[in-house]
Amino acid sequence: MRAAVISGVGQVEVTTVDDPTPGRRQVVVDVAACGLCGTDLHILQGEFAPTLPVIPGHEFAGVVAEVGAEVTEVKVGDRVAVDPSLYCHECRYCRVGRNNLCERWGGIGVSTAGGAAEYALAPVANCVKLPDHVRTEDAALIEPLSCAVRGYDVLRSQLASRVLIYGSGTMGLMMLQLGKLTGAASIDVVDLNEDRLSTARQLGCSTVATTPDEIDRPGGWDVVIDATGNAHAIQDGIDRVAKGGTFLQFGVSDYATRVQVSPYRIYNEEITITGSMAVLHSYERAADLFATGVLDPEVFISDRLPLEQYPAALEQFKAGKGRKIQVLP
Amino acid sequence: MRAAVISGVGQVEVTTVDDPTPGRRQVVVDVAACGLCGTDLHILQGEFAPTLPVIPGHEFAGVVAEVGAEVTEVKVGDRVAVDPSLYCHECRYCRVGRNNLCERWGGIGVSTAGGAAEYALAPVANCVKLPDHVRTEDAALIEPLSCAVRGYDVLRSQLASRVLIYGSGTMGLMMLQLGKLTGAASIDVVDLNEDRLSTARQLGCSTVATTPDEIDRPGGWDVVIDATGNAHAIQDGIDRVAKGGTFLQFGVSDYATRVQVSPYRIYNEEITITGSMAVLHSYERAADLFATGVLDPEVFISDRLPLEQYPAALEQFKAGKGRKIQVLP
Amino acid sequence: MRAAVISGVGQVEVTTVDDPTPGRRQVVVDVAACGLCGTDLHILQGEFAPTLPVIPGHEFAGVVAEVGAEVTEVKVGDRVAVDPSLYCHECRYCRVGRNNLCERWGGIGVSTAGGAAEYALAPVANCVKLPDHVRTEDAALIEPLSCAVRGYDVLRSQLASRVLIYGSGTMGLMMLQLGKLTGAASIDVVDLNEDRLSTARQLGCSTVATTPDEIDRPGGWDVVIDATGNAHAIQDGIDRVAKGGTFLQFGVSDYATRVQVSPYRIYNEEITITGSMAVLHSYERAADLFATGVLDPEVFISDRLPLEQYPAALEQFKAGKGRKIQVLP
Amino acid sequence: MRAAVISGVGQVEVTTVDDPTPGRRQVVVDVAACGLCGTDLHILQGEFAPTLPVIPGHEFAGVVAEVGAEVTEVKVGDRVAVDPSLYCHECRYCRVGRNNLCERWGGIGVSTAGGAAEYALAPVANCVKLPDHVRTEDAALIEPLSCAVRGYDVLRSQLASRVLIYGSGTMGLMMLQLGKLTGAASIDVVDLNEDRLSTARQLGCSTVATTPDEIDRPGGWDVVIDATGNAHAIQDGIDRVAKGGTFLQFGVSDYATRVQVSPYRIYNEEITITGSMAVLHSYERAADLFATGVLDPEVFISDRLPLEQYPAALEQFKAGKGRKIQVLP
Ligand SMILES: NC(=O)c1ccc[n+]([C@@H]2O[C@H](COP(=O)([O-])OP(=O)(O)OC[C@H]3O[C@@H](n4cnc5c(N)ncnc54)[C@H](OP(=O)(O)O)[C@@H]3O)[C@@H](O)[C@H]2O)c1
Ligand SMILES: NC(=O)c1ccc[n+]([C@@H]2O[C@H](COP(=O)([O-])OP(=O)(O)OC[C@H]3O[C@@H](n4cnc5c(N)ncnc54)[C@H](OP(=O)(O)O)[C@@H]3O)[C@@H](O)[C@H]2O)c1
Ligand SMILES: NC(=O)c1ccc[n+]([C@@H]2O[C@H](COP(=O)([O-])OP(=O)(O)OC[C@H]3O[C@@H](n4cnc5c(N)ncnc54)[C@H](OP(=O)(O)O)[C@@H]3O)[C@@H](O)[C@H]2O)c1
Ligand SMILES: NC(=O)c1ccc[n+]([C@@H]2O[C@H](COP(=O)([O-])OP(=O)(O)OC[C@H]3O[C@@H](n4cnc5c(N)ncnc54)[C@H](OP(=O)(O)O)[C@@H]3O)[C@@H](O)[C@H]2O)c1
Ligand SMILES: [Zn+2]
Ligand SMILES: [Zn+2]
Ligand SMILES: [Zn+2]
Ligand SMILES: [Zn+2]
Repeated sequence: MRAAVISGVGQVEVTTVDDPTPGRRQVVVDVAACGLCGTDLHILQGEFAPTLPVIPGHEFAGVVAEVGAEVTEVKVGDRVAVDPSLYCHECRYCRVGRNNLCERWGGIGVSTAGGAAEYALAPVANCVKLPDHVRTEDAALIEPLSCAVRGYDVLRSQLASRVLIYGSGTMGLMMLQLGKLTGAASIDVVDLNEDRLSTARQLGCSTVATTPDEIDRPGGWDVVIDATGNAHAIQDGIDRVAKGGTFLQFGVSDYATRVQVSPYRIYNEEITITGSMAVLHSYERAADLFATGVLDPEVFISDRLPLEQYPAALEQFKAGKGRKIQVLP
Repeated sequence: MRAAVISGVGQVEVTTVDDPTPGRRQVVVDVAACGLCGTDLHILQGEFAPTLPVIPGHEFAGVVAEVGAEVTEVKVGDRVAVDPSLYCHECRYCRVGRNNLCERWGGIGVSTAGGAAEYALAPVANCVKLPDHVRTEDAALIEPLSCAVRGYDVLRSQLASRVLIYGSGTMGLMMLQLGKLTGAASIDVVDLNEDRLSTARQLGCSTVATTPDEIDRPGGWDVVIDATGNAHAIQDGIDRVAKGGTFLQFGVSDYATRVQVSPYRIYNEEITITGSMAVLHSYERAADLFATGVLDPEVFISDRLPLEQYPAALEQFKAGKGRKIQVLP
Repeated sequence: MRAAVISGVGQVEVTTVDDPTPGRRQVVVDVAACGLCGTDLHILQGEFAPTLPVIPGHEFAGVVAEVGAEVTEVKVGDRVAVDPSLYCHECRYCRVGRNNLCERWGGIGVSTAGGAAEYALAPVANCVKLPDHVRTEDAALIEPLSCAVRGYDVLRSQLASRVLIYGSGTMGLMMLQLGKLTGAASIDVVDLNEDRLSTARQLGCSTVATTPDEIDRPGGWDVVIDATGNAHAIQDGIDRVAKGGTFLQFGVSDYATRVQVSPYRIYNEEITITGSMAVLHSYERAADLFATGVLDPEVFISDRLPLEQYPAALEQFKAGKGRKIQVLP
Repeated sequence: MRAAVISGVGQVEVTTVDDPTPGRRQVVVDVAACGLCGTDLHILQGEFAPTLPVIPGHEFAGVVAEVGAEVTEVKVGDRVAVDPSLYCHECRYCRVGRNNLCERWGGIGVSTAGGAAEYALAPVANCVKLPDHVRTEDAALIEPLSCAVRGYDVLRSQLASRVLIYGSGTMGLMMLQLGKLTGAASIDVVDLNEDRLSTARQLGCSTVATTPDEIDRPGGWDVVIDATGNAHAIQDGIDRVAKGGTFLQFGVSDYATRVQVSPYRIYNEEITITGSMAVLHSYERAADLFATGVLDPEVFISDRLPLEQYPAALEQFKAGKGRKIQVLP
């Protein structure tokens, strides 16, 4: 089959590799669409993936093409979205229910061959069947949505919170949509890029701005979410949290990034800073929400390219053009 | 009556002032003992108290000496401990149940005359009657305990957590006692002062050390509590939190103190940093716990001085000698 | 002024009474609209209100007509909605933050003169100013909404829950609207009255039915809410909760009503049954949500009658005709 | 090897069966001690176990006798306690982190051969190594303790709760010990059997009684726990919950048992009724707590019998004599 392969640091190509064969409880998915995200760039930079070469792609959906000997839950022809998370179920973190902190955490498209290929392998337990009204290609959005759901699980924000989101890329916009879905009283979105803000405006939010200074909330925000990974945004955001409020670190910074925090304020204003990492107990729920129409694929997916253009797609993503970029193998 | 008075920045004396008269729903407490704490030093430095002069003392207990016209809950002669918290019950924070973040937060001994005097005024709602087996003087420990209870309310730590506490002053030791009472699997205590650590050892903890480097917990601690307010301790502590764990800022730092935080780690390890400020819904509960004997007054109270020595007592506290220092008016 | 007065059990009339005078921290509200609810019927039956006669009406909004000597937060002419809750702030429940369980719980329109009158008194802290785009009369809906918010606070339901609501009266419909606003994956509404179900259908829900038997959810519902108070509905609802799910008792049953519960199932399926009572820390938040347009007043308010028709309005409410009935004094 | 075998309904014998052979990620445990509990009786009555014959015993500890080909975490000679829970990690409940509600829930000693035998098989992930100071036999108590930990996880009770426990058998006593460890202000224990109450008294609780009527708590209890499974106890207990309090169904009733609940009270007093089922994310934590000495084995284990007497041991357990009964294979 044809597949994108990250063969070494900075090296990505589309090439022909062996077709996958399903294990006992695995299925082969004929990939309909596979989204790109920051993780793919990290892998290209030699981070995250334990070994190279690897076929990237952890955001995908497709049609079941073959099933393993002991698979009964899905059958050939079923349309499915795939949770890429691979947990060991054995380590200390798995055993206390925090599988996303698994000591042997793996992911399809990270530690095993992913969805940027004609076919991909997945444990049957990771496959969620799609209802008729959901287009297979669109369902590749479920994975990033399931990360956003985990973010709100961590927040457990109250009804009528005032929310500020940094970043209106794919993830910031998903945070916006879920903010509405968790009963925020207001949601303000900040991005440096005026262009991207227009999508936030289109989706419906209280205010968009290039800096929170333009927004009139003297008491600050109950919930501040970083969906940029950018040090300036994070530093600014922590300082904007209202008394009793919470800052969620959702964006992925460089390892070396540091921000400054005032312990006096943490104490005196009972501020909470917390974080959310990938998917936890949230994939099926994201699929259910997706089926209700919480994300409009035409807004979220900006580019659909053939698999052969995977390297160019990654280049475009790196350049920050568009929103969610997909390859359609 | 005789009373300690902080009359200006850096100025404290014991002098004679008018006796208090109870309002409608107030009582006059004949103070048996009043503890000193960092807040009193802040007031002496011109911080915290909205106006000077003020009679300090927010940790006290005594005997009801007079009751206001509409008081029925306590009578003259009753022994009571007093919650110093004065909330407005009207502001945005009070109305959402976060009274300790009250926009008009006040405290007996901070914004009104306190317990470092022969008599002190208190709203009857702030008075908790003491059971027979609790000595009146000892009950002045309930107030700091109620802050520690708030700290654990914020933490809501799970059974079998691994806890690390910085500081074995009065508050660190209370955190230790409550750590046991919330089912910690282990509690390690760190202090620079070997002398103070011996009390932690005496109360029973897993390890004491002058630095966590001496303690073998490769994965870090599920719960790390700062009870020092010291920047080095806080910085060190944040970096010791285990994956999925929580750092509680309980100590009061200088306004200017800053510590550095890694957003990557907050995200990737789902670390939480949070804080706890004074008393919230915790005073009566602290009184109940105190009555069960959770704190041994002979261990916690190191010095009992006459009221006339209030300035010297404050001096000694500042010098970091002993644990809880009380004046007995 | 003219006011509705419940003068004895079963006796209600509109009559002329003295105008109210504001206390120090009170305001007089020129009532624009006052909604009726089950509580008013209870008062008429001699329940709930500690003494009769009383002017009923705890769901109201209006214009500030006069302010007490120490009121600075609002001024004459301001449009406000009023939280009727009167807490003592002194009892054991108030002191642990569960003011709605206050031992001396009172309410405007229950224990003091209410909003079914030309003018009503309210503590300034209970008044929430309305933004320009909210019509004063409509804002009488904020009070029932604040009860519904408390219900969801108790539930703290996760994103993507499957919700079943019994009752599509005013409260069931509010529960529906908030169900959407807390990210339910599906919301099914059950009512005996086909007519009322059509409003649920109009507001947008997954299924409406006269019995859950018509709805295909073999595993049951994660969240089941009773908004009827009816014994049959409650019994049926408890038995429909999915494994690991929660039943919320929001409807007010007769004191004598009993339902049967299987302890084996509570244990084996970790079912939770819980309840929510009136307003707690939720009024301002309901006002904020109301301002976002979460309730369409034209759907929720079915009847607007002059104050003089209060007895007839109560009669109509009792007969179960319409949805929210208001008097406009 | 010798093993107890429940071969049919009501039929139990000790016989010779084949020695077990470890799978890839399994270990063979040379059982040191295996405790008996209500579940074993249920299996004997033809309930719970999917098929008979089965070797019972889900509370056990022992020495690793053999390890599978891919086991690196433990080695022959290691002393371990074993979590009997077998989750599928694939079903809807497992995938949302509620593995104890697993649709294919299994248990060692329930759905596979258990610890009432010379040797037993266990997945290596279910084995917890014992520290030197814990006796292997005693560690069979960790399993029931891990159920009790789950109970308190569900409760998430606040510091200074007033707790009432029905039943002072093994589980009631564990609930008592964990009640202390979660900072209860008071713990009252009720049992019909005066004899058993003496152990509760010995372990240290506030009051013991044969009925709560003998205990003076006019406002009721914040937390009421049923550890009997008895309908009378449960009915009585639900009615004793204080306003705002919680009832935990921990005891296992007959399927047919029903208790009556007042929906008015659930609503008006915001009472919660909830349940806890077996082990969830709690086994390692129970092992950690056990290592701190939270349970005195000499108090908890009343009988240690040879494996050959398994049928008699089960008889004695059924008769309600003693506390935890163990067989030592
Ligand atoms: N926690 C998780 O589980 C999880 C899951 C998925 C993704 N993520 C992370 O979430 C973040 C967002 O992902 P994405 O796909 O939405 O990325 P994206 O498309 O690159 O969007 C990020 C947006 O933030 C803007 N931005 C950068 N610096 C800013 C600043 N100082 N102030 C305001 N806006 C700023 C960017 O503007 P410019 O284009 O002008 O730079 C861009 O529009 C990434 O860090 C990603 O790795 C986390
Ligand atoms: N959050 C609240 O509600 C609340 C309530 C009450 C008090 N507090 C705060 O809690 C903190 C502790 O109060 P306290 O009365 O226990 O104070 P304390 O008696 O001064 O105890 C603090 C202890 O921390 C030690 N320490 C200082 N720097 C350290 C470091 N880098 N590493 C390890 N140990 C260090 C000190 O040792 P040395 O003596 O050698 O300096 C001292 O033994 C204070 O900041 C206080 O203001 C907060
Ligand atoms: N917890 C709180 O804080 C709070 C606050 C406000 C109100 N409430 C309570 O909430 C409940 C609902 O209030 P509401 O104003 O919406 O009342 P409502 O207008 O009377 O609505 C109740 C609806 O339930 C329907 N119903 C009755 N029995 C039913 C059954 N067995 N199955 C299905 N539907 C059934 C009724 O149908 P019919 O018309 O055919 O009878 C009616 O449409 C009341 O009990 C009220 O007292 C509670
Ligand atoms: N939820 C879980 O995960 C879990 C785990 C393990 C066990 N369990 C269950 O927990 C329960 C207790 O287990 P156990 O091993 O401790 O059982 P046990 O030894 O039989 O103890 C139960 C005690 O309750 C007493 N009792 C019975 N009816 C009573 C009443 N009406 N009022 C007061 N006391 C009463 C019994 O007294 P008499 O001896 O006089 O009858 C006995 O002392 C059982 O139902 C068991 O199945 C649940
Ligand atoms: Zn793992
Ligand atoms: Zn306030
Ligand atoms: Zn009260
Ligand atoms: Zn499962």
